[in-house]
Amino acid sequence: MPKIKFETDYQEGAHPKILERLTATNLEQTSGYGVDAHCERAKDLIRKTINKPNAEIFFAVGGTQTNTIAIKFLLNPCEGVVCIDTGHINVHESGAIEATGHKIITLPGHNGLLDAGDLKKYLEAFYSDPTWEHMTPPGMVYVSYSSEYGTLYTKDMLTKIKSVCDEYNLKFFIDGARLGTGLMSEATDVNIKELADLCDVFYIGGTKNGALFGEALVFTKPEKFNLRLFRTLIKQQGGLLAKGRLLGIQFEVLFEDGLYFENARHADKQAMKIKNAFTEAKIPFLFESFTNQQFPILTKEQNEKLSKEFDYEEWEPLDDNRIAVRFCTSWATTDEAVEKLINAIKNL
Amino acid sequence: MPKIKFETDYQEGAHPKILERLTATNLEQTSGYGVDAHCERAKDLIRKTINKPNAEIFFAVGGTQTNTIAIKFLLNPCEGVVCIDTGHINVHESGAIEATGHKIITLPGHNGLLDAGDLKKYLEAFYSDPTWEHMTPPGMVYVSYSSEYGTLYTKDMLTKIKSVCDEYNLKFFIDGARLGTGLMSEATDVNIKELADLCDVFYIGGTKNGALFGEALVFTKPEKFNLRLFRTLIKQQGGLLAKGRLLGIQFEVLFEDGLYFENARHADKQAMKIKNAFTEAKIPFLFESFTNQQFPILTKEQNEKLSKEFDYEEWEPLDDNRIAVRFCTSWATTDEAVEKLINAIKNL
Amino acid sequence: MPKIKFETDYQEGAHPKILERLTATNLEQTSGYGVDAHCERAKDLIRKTINKPNAEIFFAVGGTQTNTIAIKFLLNPCEGVVCIDTGHINVHESGAIEATGHKIITLPGHNGLLDAGDLKKYLEAFYSDPTWEHMTPPGMVYVSYSSEYGTLYTKDMLTKIKSVCDEYNLKFFIDGARLGTGLMSEATDVNIKELADLCDVFYIGGTKNGALFGEALVFTKPEKFNLRLFRTLIKQQGGLLAKGRLLGIQFEVLFEDGLYFENARHADKQAMKIKNAFTEAKIPFLFESFTNQQFPILTKEQNEKLSKEFDYEEWEPLDDNRIAVRFCTSWATTDEAVEKLINAIKNL
Amino acid sequence: MPKIKFETDYQEGAHPKILERLTATNLEQTSGYGVDAHCERAKDLIRKTINKPNAEIFFAVGGTQTNTIAIKFLLNPCEGVVCIDTGHINVHESGAIEATGHKIITLPGHNGLLDAGDLKKYLEAFYSDPTWEHMTPPGMVYVSYSSEYGTLYTKDMLTKIKSVCDEYNLKFFIDGARLGTGLMSEATDVNIKELADLCDVFYIGGTKNGALFGEALVFTKPEKFNLRLFRTLIKQQGGLLAKGRLLGIQFEVLFEDGLYFENARHADKQAMKIKNAFTEAKIPFLFESFTNQQFPILTKEQNEKLSKEFDYEEWEPLDDNRIAVRFCTSWATTDEAVEKLINAIKNL
Repeated sequence: MPKIKFETDYQEGAHPKILERLTATNLEQTSGYGVDAHCERAKDLIRKTINKPNAEIFFAVGGTQTNTIAIKFLLNPCEGVVCIDTGHINVHESGAIEATGHKIITLPGHNGLLDAGDLKKYLEAFYSDPTWEHMTPPGMVYVSYSSEYGTLYTKDMLTKIKSVCDEYNLKFFIDGARLGTGLMSEATDVNIKELADLCDVFYIGGTKNGALFGEALVFTKPEKFNLRLFRTLIKQQGGLLAKGRLLGIQFEVLFEDGLYFENARHADKQAMKIKNAFTEAKIPFLFESFTNQQFPILTKEQNEKLSKEFDYEEWEPLDDNRIAVRFCTSWATTDEAVEKLINAIKNL
Repeated sequence: MPKIKFETDYQEGAHPKILERLTATNLEQTSGYGVDAHCERAKDLIRKTINKPNAEIFFAVGGTQTNTIAIKFLLNPCEGVVCIDTGHINVHESGAIEATGHKIITLPGHNGLLDAGDLKKYLEAFYSDPTWEHMTPPGMVYVSYSSEYGTLYTKDMLTKIKSVCDEYNLKFFIDGARLGTGLMSEATDVNIKELADLCDVFYIGGTKNGALFGEALVFTKPEKFNLRLFRTLIKQQGGLLAKGRLLGIQFEVLFEDGLYFENARHADKQAMKIKNAFTEAKIPFLFESFTNQQFPILTKEQNEKLSKEFDYEEWEPLDDNRIAVRFCTSWATTDEAVEKLINAIKNL
Repeated sequence: MPKIKFETDYQEGAHPKILERLTATNLEQTSGYGVDAHCERAKDLIRKTINKPNAEIFFAVGGTQTNTIAIKFLLNPCEGVVCIDTGHINVHESGAIEATGHKIITLPGHNGLLDAGDLKKYLEAFYSDPTWEHMTPPGMVYVSYSSEYGTLYTKDMLTKIKSVCDEYNLKFFIDGARLGTGLMSEATDVNIKELADLCDVFYIGGTKNGALFGEALVFTKPEKFNLRLFRTLIKQQGGLLAKGRLLGIQFEVLFEDGLYFENARHADKQAMKIKNAFTEAKIPFLFESFTNQQFPILTKEQNEKLSKEFDYEEWEPLDDNRIAVRFCTSWATTDEAVEKLINAIKNL
Repeated sequence: MPKIKFETDYQEGAHPKILERLTATNLEQTSGYGVDAHCERAKDLIRKTINKPNAEIFFAVGGTQTNTIAIKFLLNPCEGVVCIDTGHINVHESGAIEATGHKIITLPGHNGLLDAGDLKKYLEAFYSDPTWEHMTPPGMVYVSYSSEYGTLYTKDMLTKIKSVCDEYNLKFFIDGARLGTGLMSEATDVNIKELADLCDVFYIGGTKNGALFGEALVFTKPEKFNLRLFRTLIKQQGGLLAKGRLLGIQFEVLFEDGLYFENARHADKQAMKIKNAFTEAKIPFLFESFTNQQFPILTKEQNEKLSKEFDYEEWEPLDDNRIAVRFCTSWATTDEAVEKLINAIKNL
């Protein structure tokens, strides 16, 4: 019998409504590369959702691609991007940012989050260093919402980061690979409109929230940027999908009736059940997360037992007897799977 | 009433069998990034098809991405790729190759094809130039099969290019964005096994032959290359699809019962009907093509008439009264659409 | 006995006055990287010479480096630089521009010169191509003064190119590796002040005009650019000389009493004598040049004879019996060497 | 009266013997780009010095350039270079490595030195991480000898690093910007022949040891590498000096009679005098250095006093009252300057 998988939030295909719509529209003839009515409608739906009628929106296939394109665009040739050491672009994108010629400037993270105070201190030190011309000047700040550790910035934290960015003329970019589960978390105090206000650019992750693939990159203050060649840049980076409407169609389905948020709410709800089960079993966590990634710390024995029935990620060995692991839920996580897991936790 | 579109071969979704299979497998749980049974089976099917049990195969989402990854991998840091002036990488990929740091060295094309004699002459001149160390050394040759103009290399032409490549230690890469319609053309004298033998690397284009997206990059002589980090390179270039099995599933459907070739045969057949109609109407062609791209030369009047009912690409104005245009067929081109077009041609 | 060398204009060291000054200042202690009084004075001398009190000037070591830095700075990430096919950056810089991620867009040259009409035609075609978003958008124009073939733009030609650049919002950059011999040529109708007006950026080549090394990159309209990070960019490209004052000192010597122009005038004068000798011997030229590069077309026999006593560059075989060669003069070319060559030409 | 400068080891010109030789050879005519008898002789002198008759040697102008070229050459496209956090390439080269597309993978330093144990632990963790394909694979190790903090690896430390490199198939590169002062230090236990054995590539820094400029990059095991295009790579990175013989001539002078080592010995000797003076004054150091960089920790008051007469680098404020500073000596540091400094230290 195959194990039940809690490894990631992209182990199934797409929400059935997306496949249905792709099937229904399959024989339509449209122009390629995202110049079609589906893409236009999807963009309008997103603009409405974030309450930014002038937002400029571009679709790309995956997260690494989207990050790479955005950061390449936002930086001058010799600038770098500021990011915490555990940021996705720094750890898990195979050097994609550096491949475009830019350094990632790392600051220490706090439970997966960048601290505005750290940022400010770094910037002060940078510009007071008499050799700064020989160093990599920061051009932008990158954070993830929700973070790689499932944790969340408060509105106040984002506001403070934004304010440091403004002071030092840095662009502020939010990686939203897991935006949905962040915004739907019971622990958040920020909504998508506020988040859009608080940054220059962010992306709405589709891949990890019910789409086959697809991320929507949103310039919330397009008047700040010259976007004339942005589609050419996407093409140059290999990100302009020939059948571009596939992206439009998926985001139409996700945003026309709130499916994007519903999917995320479901993932969070299932994660909270799992979190509670671990808590009740007195099993501690590596991070306190209120989103769809949970990082319990298992003993060797517990890990051996659980891993017979379930697949999940071994995150980080802590010592000879303890290992932090990651359980991930998604729009597709069934009640049945969660119940089985909860029972197994009870029996540890 | 919307016009009938002959603009490209990627204006519909996917062959219905692909959507059916995606739907049937939708709730399967698999690991991400192409490490799954579907991808493995698809690779095996391709290996069998090309009769290369040891071929190494990697999937990527689109053509520009696949070209970029392959070329970045095949070249040393200061080498360039040789390509005819009208080659896709030189003209229509927004400088994606140069963005990886490599020069494209252009030779004149002949009806969209590279001539082995030209190649040899260039190489002789290059290495007899006393200043060659200051120039870009060629590291590989890029051709497209079928070409950007719908034309085809004969087996003899490919053999001669391969032989020059071997003499000068150049890698030989074939862009197969439109491989299917090339191989199924009534005018070809090469099959997929021979083509695989004649190059080091080629890719099997899915996007333009019935897939939603997807290209299969095939190293036919993997013993020549160190591919240990190839997946990391794909990731770095933003080409490692999270739900990687989507690529596997599509290539399974395309290669388990010959659908890939069937799709291409259909496209070619429809193109030949259109070609005949233009020929009967005494309308000349820019290139003699026996594949799914046809380039008739229309008068201004003919163009105005046809464009009322049909969408097609305006390729190149030839003079004040004549314009070369492109009609493209695909797996999805209906008999009805072709008949309407033929009637319209008759009435020009 | 060693042959007399007319191969290049950088086969000797530096003008003796430069070595003297380097010796005289050798034990001065200055800060590194060009932040010193010599560099400041050299910049002021250049500003005076070109009559641009606000010009921003940066020094770099060599020509390829200077071109690379300037072009990397002037282009947006996906833009390319327009250049004739024989332009130095396209042919003899080992792909340095592409290594920064940018495509060189080539137009046909006319005796080594770009034609404003060609440029305009290309730009019109580019922006009327419906697929332009998939192509490399031009961001700037590169020309050399004097050209790689020793030929010269007239003021009118430069004015026309500038005007096309302005119309299409392209930056205009002049490679002045051989600026001196261009400006001192009997055939020029433009002076350095006019040239500075006619472009956005140009560089004053020291290496080929009497310096040990060194080029001065001049932003003549600095208000158009954000140069805050330019020194960091130079550093990033490996062009910020530690003992930066060496560049300042050399340009001080070259520009404090007109040595720069004197050197070039000498080179041109010697070249004209050689030109006359070939002309009198009824030996034709590949290009009509009035600067320090002369391209006579020799028969095989003439070439064999001359090459016994003299080194010069074999430029391009024209047919089995004729070869174009290049004779180069410089600030260091002696009367004696020229007389010997003239005698040899007479005896061909 | 100008202050006496102890800011860096490149604040004067060149050792007088170098200027004399440049003057003596000034009117020689040689071919460009390092293809000349001076460069050949200089290479032979270095080969003899390191006892490696087959070593391949290339000259470049500066340190950042040399590092960039070497690292770009040694890495596969998606590999990174391992370096301690304070390594020169990571901190003070304006992102030059990243500009070639490669990530710098940082490990913590210990007094400016990489620990073989840290390296091994990192490599074990990397390859046991199931997601390593999504990370940047290490391709080489970079260390500096002497280090950025004036500290030195022992033979044992280098041997251990080399052994980890061999185990994991990493190339080992030593940045020798300050090689001379390292090798001549009273605290070293390694000589240049041993150092050459212990790495794959290193460079002999000229700029900071008496040359006007120039670094000699030495491949000590050239049979491991394909160096056919290395000069082209240098050219591509803007590092191939036109008057290449200037590099050859300088290294001839430095290596024909041991001047290279004499210069370094002098610098170290002067530094030790300064070190002693600080020690006698009970002033502590940030690092214990036995080379030409000394890092005393001054009180605010001491700093104010000393800085009236002397220029030196303010390295790092430690708290409100204490600052670490750097005093640098060189081949040119006079006894008189050192005595003045010592007196000033005594009077603190």
